[in-house]
Amino acid sequence: MWSQKEITLKPKSRGFHLITHEILQSVDELKNFNLGMMNIFIQHTSACLTINENADPTVRQDFENFFNKSIPENEPYYLHMDEGSDDLPAHFKSSILGNSLNIPVTNGRLNMGIWQGIYLGEHRNHAGSRRLVITIQGE
Amino acid sequence: MWSQKEITLKPKSRGFHLITHEILQSVDELKNFNLGMMNIFIQHTSACLTINENADPTVRQDFENFFNKSIPENEPYYLHMDEGSDDLPAHFKSSILGNSLNIPVTNGRLNMGIWQGIYLGEHRNHAGSRRLVITIQGE
Amino acid sequence: MWSQKEITLKPKSRGFHLITHEILQSVDELKNFNLGMMNIFIQHTSACLTINENADPTVRQDFENFFNKSIPENEPYYLHMDEGSDDLPAHFKSSILGNSLNIPVTNGRLNMGIWQGIYLGEHRNHAGSRRLVITIQGE
Repeated sequence: MWSQKEITLKPKSRGFHLITHEILQSVDELKNFNLGMMNIFIQHTSACLTINENADPTVRQDFENFFNKSIPENEPYYLHMDEGSDDLPAHFKSSILGNSLNIPVTNGRLNMGIWQGIYLGEHRNHAGSRRLVITIQGE
Repeated sequence: MWSQKEITLKPKSRGFHLITHEILQSVDELKNFNLGMMNIFIQHTSACLTINENADPTVRQDFENFFNKSIPENEPYYLHMDEGSDDLPAHFKSSILGNSLNIPVTNGRLNMGIWQGIYLGEHRNHAGSRRLVITIQGE
Repeated sequence: MWSQKEITLKPKSRGFHLITHEILQSVDELKNFNLGMMNIFIQHTSACLTINENADPTVRQDFENFFNKSIPENEPYYLHMDEGSDDLPAHFKSSILGNSLNIPVTNGRLNMGIWQGIYLGEHRNHAGSRRLVITIQGE
């Protein structure tokens, strides 16, 4: 049994955002899967998807600060600068953190740990909406 | 054909551990899959799963040292400090290295390269046991 | 419906290479999948697979320079040095960037964004050919 859909996330500010609820609202059919796997794929190269702590909002703030510090803008050796100083670091962040998630499905629900949430990392200063492809398979 | 189970790894010391054998011991049904995919998902946000060199134990030691150096504890700008100085860096490591693996299955075996092994990265100083969800699908 | 094959990529120079075309040429059967998922798995621990910007070649050059700077060779505390100074950093890069991709399949095509391409990150100075396992499933 397969389900696949494309959804569009509303534009978000630069930073890490908890989108678990936004994802779940868009896949009502998840409840029909007794056992399976859900893949979430972002069709962009300057944003990321990752799973992390869903409770304390300062974790997301620390993520933004840590990755900005580790992956700085405007390094003198950067070549790809035409799309703004935030663009190339956004590409690095996207590849480091990843652009797709695979989450097991059990009894019609995502089988994550209780402290796990789905993050969208928006790495551009003025991004538009972001398109995701959500594929669920199972039985 | 689907198989899914939750297993618990015994508590491990901080560092990178080769768990290929521990995984394989828990999925006897793998031999029934002629062709497919295995997903291993860790239900925690302060440990990781990754695949790397399975032969020389100093590689795992170098992993621990490198990631501790690149992702330091106690940076003055960190906000999320309530759970100990090892907690926030553990969250970063988990998202950078990943919390799930997808490994092809061929003729009843994981079709990895001969030098590849499955690592658990335990990033907390005093972690408890870790829960994994292992999902195999195929034919 | 499942398809699985192993392919060998020609040896490549150290750096990031766009291999979307090389992948697609090897999976003619992709057109038979109306909806599904493709997994690409690299059987090596000193190269990586990632998805990023497919247009401007300076992005790949910046990737090579950025990861060489962030993950230096010959740090005094490194232990695993027997296989050359490029080997241990190659292992780190492989785990940070990842060794497998999952890409949704829609109407017989990879459903990536228009700016997304598949990168092979070759992290050794003098690598041989690289083996990939490509698994497609769907309906």
